[in-house]
Amino acid sequence: MKIGILGGGGVAQTLAGKLMALGHDVVIGLRAVTPEDLAKPRQMAVPLQDWMKASGGKVVTLAAAAAHGEVLINAMTGQGSIPGLQAAGAAQLDGKVLIDVANPLDFSQGMPPFLMAEYAGPTSLAEQIQAAFPTARVVKAFNTIAAAVMVDPGLVKGPHDLFIAGNDAAAKAQVSAIARSFGWEHIVDLGDIVGARGTEALLPIWVRLWTTSGSAMHNMHVARG
Amino acid sequence: MKIGILGGGGVAQTLAGKLMALGHDVVIGLRAVTPEDLAKPRQMAVPLQDWMKASGGKVVTLAAAAAHGEVLINAMTGQGSIPGLQAAGAAQLDGKVLIDVANPLDFSQGMPPFLMAEYAGPTSLAEQIQAAFPTARVVKAFNTIAAAVMVDPGLVKGPHDLFIAGNDAAAKAQVSAIARSFGWEHIVDLGDIVGARGTEALLPIWVRLWTTSGSAMHNMHVARG
Repeated sequence: MKIGILGGGGVAQTLAGKLMALGHDVVIGLRAVTPEDLAKPRQMAVPLQDWMKASGGKVVTLAAAAAHGEVLINAMTGQGSIPGLQAAGAAQLDGKVLIDVANPLDFSQGMPPFLMAEYAGPTSLAEQIQAAFPTARVVKAFNTIAAAVMVDPGLVKGPHDLFIAGNDAAAKAQVSAIARSFGWEHIVDLGDIVGARGTEALLPIWVRLWTTSGSAMHNMHVARG
Repeated sequence: MKIGILGGGGVAQTLAGKLMALGHDVVIGLRAVTPEDLAKPRQMAVPLQDWMKASGGKVVTLAAAAAHGEVLINAMTGQGSIPGLQAAGAAQLDGKVLIDVANPLDFSQGMPPFLMAEYAGPTSLAEQIQAAFPTARVVKAFNTIAAAVMVDPGLVKGPHDLFIAGNDAAAKAQVSAIARSFGWEHIVDLGDIVGARGTEALLPIWVRLWTTSGSAMHNMHVARG
């Protein structure tokens, strides 16, 4: 499948590597693709010029990545997501599955980050993306775990859950199929895109479990009666 | 043990009933104890006059309940917590373990509720309670599950976790002992009171799991690598 990943940090590189290994035709999209952009350090990851050499992966503009993908992944920052999708171009998103992996975290006061005020009340980043691009088929997914766990759930022991939310059942089925190809066995469908409020708000406890245990290799499992 | 429960809704009545069954000397505290207060409907619970008849429990003022308890439980609403604790009186809280079960939920826009803006950023209700009453030994606990599950964790199958956070290790040990007396086997210590940001922010997904499944009998378990 042709997949366009928007964003070039650790989440983007990790998802791109796994999807390429599974045989998909993947490109990473950046706002600008200058030698400086390719050389600069990336959040939780190597410079993209090094990633390209090591993986054979391609880096193009956001618009080119969005045009390339039948399925798109938003792996930009919370702050950068809507501007980046606007730069990619609404027409390039039309009718496509857009997996929103981003978290609306405010790091302005250092650690721990907290939810950006504009997405912490009766809305969420994913809902605002869906509202800004109404013909995209937004599915919130993969935002509640470390990048390594997204593509290798076996790094966490025992049953644990991938949470998804979105308005389009067929889009959620396609995202679930991708998740199963990564090894996910337990997928919890939180209903329409409003469910993203729940998964985005998992970040404060995710960060806290990380800082108190020293390990990012953890995830939640919903136990039921 | 002498326990004062501040608040008279379903959480207060459920905790009071279990603690009384375990042999503790429990009172419920209300802002005012008039015949009207005792007769009015309570959130997720019966009027307190009915609860008193059925359980033999006592209802007194917030100040009297706080004076009575060696251990106090804040089971008031998020909005009512700090005003209610002020009404109970700072002197009555001095040096005591104060278990904060409250959630800062804003229901002003109906369902689903969201975190009150003043507690959704780089703080939490429990931190603000600790700041307002610095000599109280605040432990955030029991706020991430339905009242019935708080006192009977066996209502949810498989391992699942009680999250606690607080600045005082001895206070957390005392709360953990109470939790174990309710049947809790898995207690996750999230460190100092800042950890309450994580557990208060679990409410959006808790509510979502409830509305999408139709059952409140669920809880999270942290799976680790």
